[in-house]
Amino acid sequence: MRIEKLREYIAEKELDGVIITHKPNLYYFTGSAPVLGGYLLVTPDEALFLVPQLEYEEARETSRVPVEAFKRGGELFEKLKPFNLKRLGIEGRTAYSTVQNYREKLGAEEFFMVDEVIKELRMVKTKEELEVIQKACEIADQAMLVAIEEISEGKREREIAAKMEYAMKMKGAEKPAFDTIIASGWRSALPHGVASDKRIERGELVVIDEGALYNHYNSDTTRTIVVGSPNEKQKDIYQAVLEAQKKGVEMARPGMTAKELDTIVRDVIAEYGYGDYFIHSTGHGVGLEIHEWPGVNQSDETVLKPGMVVTIEPGIYLPKFGGVRIEDTIVITENGAKRLTRTERELI
Amino acid sequence: MRIEKLREYIAEKELDGVIITHKPNLYYFTGSAPVLGGYLLVTPDEALFLVPQLEYEEARETSRVPVEAFKRGGELFEKLKPFNLKRLGIEGRTAYSTVQNYREKLGAEEFFMVDEVIKELRMVKTKEELEVIQKACEIADQAMLVAIEEISEGKREREIAAKMEYAMKMKGAEKPAFDTIIASGWRSALPHGVASDKRIERGELVVIDEGALYNHYNSDTTRTIVVGSPNEKQKDIYQAVLEAQKKGVEMARPGMTAKELDTIVRDVIAEYGYGDYFIHSTGHGVGLEIHEWPGVNQSDETVLKPGMVVTIEPGIYLPKFGGVRIEDTIVITENGAKRLTRTERELI
Repeated sequence: MRIEKLREYIAEKELDGVIITHKPNLYYFTGSAPVLGGYLLVTPDEALFLVPQLEYEEARETSRVPVEAFKRGGELFEKLKPFNLKRLGIEGRTAYSTVQNYREKLGAEEFFMVDEVIKELRMVKTKEELEVIQKACEIADQAMLVAIEEISEGKREREIAAKMEYAMKMKGAEKPAFDTIIASGWRSALPHGVASDKRIERGELVVIDEGALYNHYNSDTTRTIVVGSPNEKQKDIYQAVLEAQKKGVEMARPGMTAKELDTIVRDVIAEYGYGDYFIHSTGHGVGLEIHEWPGVNQSDETVLKPGMVVTIEPGIYLPKFGGVRIEDTIVITENGAKRLTRTERELI
Repeated sequence: MRIEKLREYIAEKELDGVIITHKPNLYYFTGSAPVLGGYLLVTPDEALFLVPQLEYEEARETSRVPVEAFKRGGELFEKLKPFNLKRLGIEGRTAYSTVQNYREKLGAEEFFMVDEVIKELRMVKTKEELEVIQKACEIADQAMLVAIEEISEGKREREIAAKMEYAMKMKGAEKPAFDTIIASGWRSALPHGVASDKRIERGELVVIDEGALYNHYNSDTTRTIVVGSPNEKQKDIYQAVLEAQKKGVEMARPGMTAKELDTIVRDVIAEYGYGDYFIHSTGHGVGLEIHEWPGVNQSDETVLKPGMVVTIEPGIYLPKFGGVRIEDTIVITENGAKRLTRTERELI
């Protein structure tokens, strides 16, 4: 069915074939994830997954598409040449040097970007995909509890991240979905404050942003806490972010655009007077990649559909003072949305 | 000096400029590593690092090159257009869609791949780089000791990997250099047997292949052990791999080619009668990327120079029976080579 969608595009554009090389797409279409990658060729009536020799045994056992191995040094192109791929579909992210090889070694003449087709497919998750993402989210919730329990005065950010990542792995995660963010004090004003050697101090805001990669799918969640008692300003920005995040989760539903959802969340932060300090998107799609489609921001007018998975993660960042972000991964349902990460949000 | 080398190439090819986007190269040339990446423009007399707005504060503090922020939606190209980049140097891995943008939005007409220049620079490490790699290797050695101590009958591969990665992080690593391989029993015959939920059993070979990312630089080391007492065949293949690996480290020196070094190691395995079961390269370069140049294999004729860092990692893989691999990261010195990972090799 997934490959059939590619074939519809092939027919529509009268292509000779499509070559896929981006690893998440290879897994999506073949069910196999060779460490060294591979080349999936789809033509009007054939599909073939070419992998480096070293990966052959594992790919053959996992791939839904016939697998062949190629040896280093040109054999890949020898195997592809007979397909006579003059009008060739590729991913926009295909390397320029690879495209040059397709031109020179395969005689490809015209290139067509298939990204939109793949995006439309991958954006709406199947029941099976949602079950895996739900599990990835549960592992992220468990890691969050570790963080909340472990964070205390004097500990280093990196130590907290190490404990969380250990917990993820022991719960079955392949690895963290991204570099775990533990950003305390002034660092909490950095949206990408990956855990450092900084020691956490009393009275500081601590932003914890983390996710797990489980069976190829990602999760993403953020909580913010204060070590000790929060002051009035900390409480005020926390309240603004909490209200915005809750409203985003409550209001998300099929039929609205991603941009409209962003506006709903952004307006709450603006009403509190912190609009200029919410300096990023409300959220992003999550799936085989940690950042995918749709973007929940002012430039994405994708209409939300049941099965889409996005984050809702408003934040307020006051330079030098610190920041607050609260984030859940949610799935759009028939009549609303459901949180897949479920750690308590009233933490300050 | 690094940027000057790019300028020599710019002069030689009469380019209007070079745009770098690959993250390890961005770090190499600017000293900054924005999570969302960026665009480094180098022209005959200017250098400018363009980063997404969200990354501006951090990039400005770390970059050796002047930094400007660009807003989502076209501002990047507005900022680049005045440089009139008709003859443009790019990395071969630049995305096809990005190259199309350079064509359509910047009026770029001809593209030149700068990979060779960057490779020649990055391949020979400076004293400062070697110090960082040495530290990354020490962390890998410490993680290896954790594995050797923790591996016992009944434990799951994933649990061992979790403990090793925790130790790495506590010792200051950013993260593992790659997905830690713990491959026991029949899985040890898979060169890429990332730690799974399999339980380790008595009498099994266990291949442990791991490395740490420390301050942007990688390390890579492998050891193989047996749980309990090895049988004769396990001892035999271990002996072959051990002798090949030691000979590779001993014989590596400046002036020989990477291919010659591969041959020396490969010949030892062949003498033991296992030539057909050594199914990968002898090694690869290590630095800002875990797999870089030179490749230590039959198709790489790079002449080794002091300051190059490569792995020596022969292996024998007997399908269903199991496998053995022993690997160190080494640096080529003035008159030979030095092991940077130093865990004991006589383990069976």
